[in-house]
Amino acid sequence: MEKVAIGIDLGGTNLKGIILTEKGESKHVTRIPTEAEKGGARVMENILTLIGMLVEKNGGTDSILGVGIGTPGFIDQDGLMLGGAENLPGWKGTQVFAPIMEKYGLKATGGNDVTVTALAELRFGAGKGVKNMVCFALGTGIGGGIALGGKLYKGSHGMAGELGHIVVETNGLQCNCGQKGCVERYASATGIVNLAKSLCTDPGVTTPFAEELRKDPSQVTSKMVYDYVAKNDYAAVSVHKTATDMLARAVGITLNSLAPDRVVLGGGVMMAGDVILDAVKENTKKYCWPAIYERCDMTIAQMGEDAGVMGSAAMVFDEFAGK
Amino acid sequence: MEKVAIGIDLGGTNLKGIILTEKGESKHVTRIPTEAEKGGARVMENILTLIGMLVEKNGGTDSILGVGIGTPGFIDQDGLMLGGAENLPGWKGTQVFAPIMEKYGLKATGGNDVTVTALAELRFGAGKGVKNMVCFALGTGIGGGIALGGKLYKGSHGMAGELGHIVVETNGLQCNCGQKGCVERYASATGIVNLAKSLCTDPGVTTPFAEELRKDPSQVTSKMVYDYVAKNDYAAVSVHKTATDMLARAVGITLNSLAPDRVVLGGGVMMAGDVILDAVKENTKKYCWPAIYERCDMTIAQMGEDAGVMGSAAMVFDEFAGK
Repeated sequence: MEKVAIGIDLGGTNLKGIILTEKGESKHVTRIPTEAEKGGARVMENILTLIGMLVEKNGGTDSILGVGIGTPGFIDQDGLMLGGAENLPGWKGTQVFAPIMEKYGLKATGGNDVTVTALAELRFGAGKGVKNMVCFALGTGIGGGIALGGKLYKGSHGMAGELGHIVVETNGLQCNCGQKGCVERYASATGIVNLAKSLCTDPGVTTPFAEELRKDPSQVTSKMVYDYVAKNDYAAVSVHKTATDMLARAVGITLNSLAPDRVVLGGGVMMAGDVILDAVKENTKKYCWPAIYERCDMTIAQMGEDAGVMGSAAMVFDEFAGK
Repeated sequence: MEKVAIGIDLGGTNLKGIILTEKGESKHVTRIPTEAEKGGARVMENILTLIGMLVEKNGGTDSILGVGIGTPGFIDQDGLMLGGAENLPGWKGTQVFAPIMEKYGLKATGGNDVTVTALAELRFGAGKGVKNMVCFALGTGIGGGIALGGKLYKGSHGMAGELGHIVVETNGLQCNCGQKGCVERYASATGIVNLAKSLCTDPGVTTPFAEELRKDPSQVTSKMVYDYVAKNDYAAVSVHKTATDMLARAVGITLNSLAPDRVVLGGGVMMAGDVILDAVKENTKKYCWPAIYERCDMTIAQMGEDAGVMGSAAMVFDEFAGK
């Protein structure tokens, strides 16, 4: 019987679930509301409900190797939520694996929701065949994922990969984490928008982008910034230069530390594509050893929306297959 | 027959060799001059001579599992020197493993000389039983070593662990590597001495340490700085505060990235001991996630002078045993 794995991606709004084969074929995808606002216990109930729906679709648990959970924050190897998921009240302290074993007799494993997308890239996307890979996911914040020796590196207690909090500017912009100058203050979607706002509120900046921004600053997105970068708008390009220089500083630090074969840039911001990739590539030269730089390539993530559930399910094959 | 490994530590002045058992018992240690100034080919000849001496002491090659080489710079998995060893002219481009196989029929492996000391700590010293560990070696420069999942992590092409070049101060002091503000400009022995010189050349600084420094700035060492730190000399303490704050910034970045169980501080500077450890521990709190900080301890390296040869030999057991 072909073995499959269940992958669950826990988002602030939706719980998404998949049944995946080892080759990465999706047998079934479902989503239900997370109901995060109703607290950790309710979220756990909903996860169990979703697993039940997937088990039913699969015709029972016999062929299911286990369940992989991708969650915001830190989940340790025993399934305990250690924190770091501020948008899920009451989720910290939840024991995630035990109820799954109890209700369905299925083993479970877990990882940070961004970190597991790196595994999806490694198995099925931009990292196929790569041994050592570092991913930066440029979304609302910046998350990271590290794969070493062809395997996802979760770190002690599942906490590795907080690459968005590499400080790239001494005494720079204040970050939620308490530090100043974290790369996510500059190169995440939020960071790019804030850079644009603070540049363009100066009425002396009179480019078309700045004029549009001043009409309604609340409507600015990183996509809008990059639409104007494509038109070579001076103000938008200036924001782009800062964001990609800051990101390159963080990339350079990971190159000097880990000497990966490949760096993968993903997340919503990367919809802008090569303009960001090319700038980060060029800037990273300044921020690491040439011998390391020359032997590392850089590319854009390939996995789409399903990266979270697929990476979560892939953990199951990596950790439970043959055991 | 009990298997042993040969470890070679390639220094600018001496080549050191060891015959080591898997338990870490040293059967024999020898050293001969490197003769670095005579070029890469001569250095390779001398390595072969040293291996010959160790083979003879061992009574032949039968019990020898292989040879591990710790070298400055980057050596790849095939034994090719990729560079980064500026004090060894003509060493870049040397093929190190093939001549050893040819002359003695022994397999060889290699690693950066600092990185392999991390393996010595992991197997025999401050990292025994630890899964994920990061070492900072505070010497003339700052080197690094990373062990993950209980194994030395060399990175692609053996280039991981350049932790001395994590930038900790934007537009900071110029580093040889081309960047500005690398941690080794502040927290290596050289960095500490330079901080002391630039502080104390100001005649307005009138502490006993500053007075002594001004008598002959060329005689200042990091040890002297720490002798005065012990006497609570204001100027020396000020240098200490800067150095340990800068080091903590780099440590914080590695914690957020890798979430290790343990950080090990070693190298000559750490002769000063707990005063540095305690300050770095305290300062690191500011530079990473509390959940990660709380689960990582920090300690001083335990291996002495033989860390290089022992780590080099330990690579042999890790990579060739059971094969």
